[in-house]
Amino acid sequence: MKMERRDFLSKAAIASAATLFSTNSLLSATYPAKEKLGIALVGLGYYSTDLLAPALQLTEKAYLAGIVTGTPSKAETWKKKYNLPEKNIYNYQNFDQIANNPDIDVVYVVLPPSMHREFVVRAAKAGKHVFCEKPMAPSVADCEAMIKACKDNKVKLAIGYRCQHDPNIQAYMQVAKEQKFGKVKMVTSAAGYFDGRTNHWKQNKALGGGVMGDMGVYALQGARLATGEEPISVIAQASTTRPEIYKEVEETMMFLLEFPSGARASCQTSFGINMNYLQVNYEKGWLKMEPQSGYNGNKGSMSDGTLINFTIKSQQAKQMDEDCMAIMVGTDLIAPGEEGLRDIRVVEAIYKSVKTGQLVKI
Amino acid sequence: MKMERRDFLSKAAIASAATLFSTNSLLSATYPAKEKLGIALVGLGYYSTDLLAPALQLTEKAYLAGIVTGTPSKAETWKKKYNLPEKNIYNYQNFDQIANNPDIDVVYVVLPPSMHREFVVRAAKAGKHVFCEKPMAPSVADCEAMIKACKDNKVKLAIGYRCQHDPNIQAYMQVAKEQKFGKVKMVTSAAGYFDGRTNHWKQNKALGGGVMGDMGVYALQGARLATGEEPISVIAQASTTRPEIYKEVEETMMFLLEFPSGARASCQTSFGINMNYLQVNYEKGWLKMEPQSGYNGNKGSMSDGTLINFTIKSQQAKQMDEDCMAIMVGTDLIAPGEEGLRDIRVVEAIYKSVKTGQLVKI
Repeated sequence: MKMERRDFLSKAAIASAATLFSTNSLLSATYPAKEKLGIALVGLGYYSTDLLAPALQLTEKAYLAGIVTGTPSKAETWKKKYNLPEKNIYNYQNFDQIANNPDIDVVYVVLPPSMHREFVVRAAKAGKHVFCEKPMAPSVADCEAMIKACKDNKVKLAIGYRCQHDPNIQAYMQVAKEQKFGKVKMVTSAAGYFDGRTNHWKQNKALGGGVMGDMGVYALQGARLATGEEPISVIAQASTTRPEIYKEVEETMMFLLEFPSGARASCQTSFGINMNYLQVNYEKGWLKMEPQSGYNGNKGSMSDGTLINFTIKSQQAKQMDEDCMAIMVGTDLIAPGEEGLRDIRVVEAIYKSVKTGQLVKI
Repeated sequence: MKMERRDFLSKAAIASAATLFSTNSLLSATYPAKEKLGIALVGLGYYSTDLLAPALQLTEKAYLAGIVTGTPSKAETWKKKYNLPEKNIYNYQNFDQIANNPDIDVVYVVLPPSMHREFVVRAAKAGKHVFCEKPMAPSVADCEAMIKACKDNKVKLAIGYRCQHDPNIQAYMQVAKEQKFGKVKMVTSAAGYFDGRTNHWKQNKALGGGVMGDMGVYALQGARLATGEEPISVIAQASTTRPEIYKEVEETMMFLLEFPSGARASCQTSFGINMNYLQVNYEKGWLKMEPQSGYNGNKGSMSDGTLINFTIKSQQAKQMDEDCMAIMVGTDLIAPGEEGLRDIRVVEAIYKSVKTGQLVKI
């Protein structure tokens, strides 16, 4: 990843050309020339209901073609609301039959993290491209298995990193790439919100809960994307101010990262604190974002007076459109499985540091 | 410390009354009723030359009465520039004779940190009040000895924490005290600058160098003053990107603090990075300062739209005036020796954490 804007623009240009000649050979031979790819959402919780399904009403290259849910009442509601054909509605048992459904081009896994591996692998085996929500999985081993399954079955795997499709985030990635203010020296990256729930999967270890995977990857991505580097060591500290709720997983994680260039980052994430900002200090200037990873309104400023304040109608719509375009045209995904794995590699090191109380090399 | 603004105002009112009746009994019996206290600066480096001496031209309760220097040429220059009488100029050998000089009320120690203890103790034994630059000393043992010497000799000891005299800093201290936005949850505090020097005491361990004492106490104070609490644990990481210069001491220090209330702080300090900011996330809002500990221009904003932007003519003049007033009136100092000790206690724990690679309880 770490796509340059000019790369992005040229890919968009290719994609537009592909759309003009929608029967041409640029389109994958596996798929008939479709105007839009059919997406099946797996798991109909808050994110599917309130973010992805509405976004799929705005997409130009994707549409809501089907659903996979373990709750029959949800199936009924969604069927009516989105006018879905009965044949495109699956449960977790008959899900594998999706292989025979030409309406479904992409399976979007929006389940708790512990279930990602199973459903990504099953989707890949069914010959469907896969979108998978973040965090990619609870372990590096899971991520590697998911990447391998998609490779083996010749399908694409995109991680739902909506922010990397947000031009406001791409702007600060570009600043690092161009070294506009010289080398990055220090990053502070914080992402958290007060979660009042007491019995959600986010508080459940077996389901892949804990703030590190959920909000922590935003704090981590702030540091990774602002430096354009992968961390080589981490020291981390987990804590909880509500032990009656956070029995199994951490409410707050703080971690210090070291990067190959010598850049350092301090990251904070919490289910108990409303915070969302990024500060980057370079050799010759600074950049700030606040919010840095919101669903909308991400914006920032730089020491030379440059403002970052792009407006987009929907991050999730842009993400799905761009990922579908990459599938249709056969170009690189902005955030493929390997990008999700990069984060989980650091997340594993963070938990190891918490366990040992020591710095962990990555 | 942690004085409420109303305390400050009422003290100021008492002090004003004292000034009106300058022969009254509120003034210390030890000192004749002076309009201004005479200050002798010990150590005529950059800070004395460029900050304190000019500030002493603006003070209303203090004036530059003498100097103590090991460099005869500096003595000559200062004598002429500030019209100092020969009898008020000392060197490090004859310094103790200052005991017999009624012009000198306060000795202000502006030497490298390793020399603070010796000169604070000698000044106290000479019966003079003492101002001492930050960091107070390289060790807790030194700080305790300095406090004891001043107590034994019935003189006051003030640490040169100019920021605590800055109304912009007092404003965020007050927000913590009043719990304007509820409890403090997370603090990010950064203070650093690019130091191009290669052979200064700041790079010399024996002289008390290292970024932690010099700039690190600003990062630490940001967290301590923004929470109004003392940290109970720390985990720290020292690093250096210019090992050819930072052979003996750290160029950069990052440390994570835990406070009794459950508040957490992430602090960064460096001689290699220009950065100076504070971000506080409370239960119900936020506060930002940038710069947070500059010589001037400290300013900030809060989530409810309140701006912090007080103008003062000189932090150092305000500091010396307020400290002299406290001596004249016999009231509490804003930043006494005990406040300097609080920081050094954390600094010692930070170095211990760096050495062991483990969290250290304070």
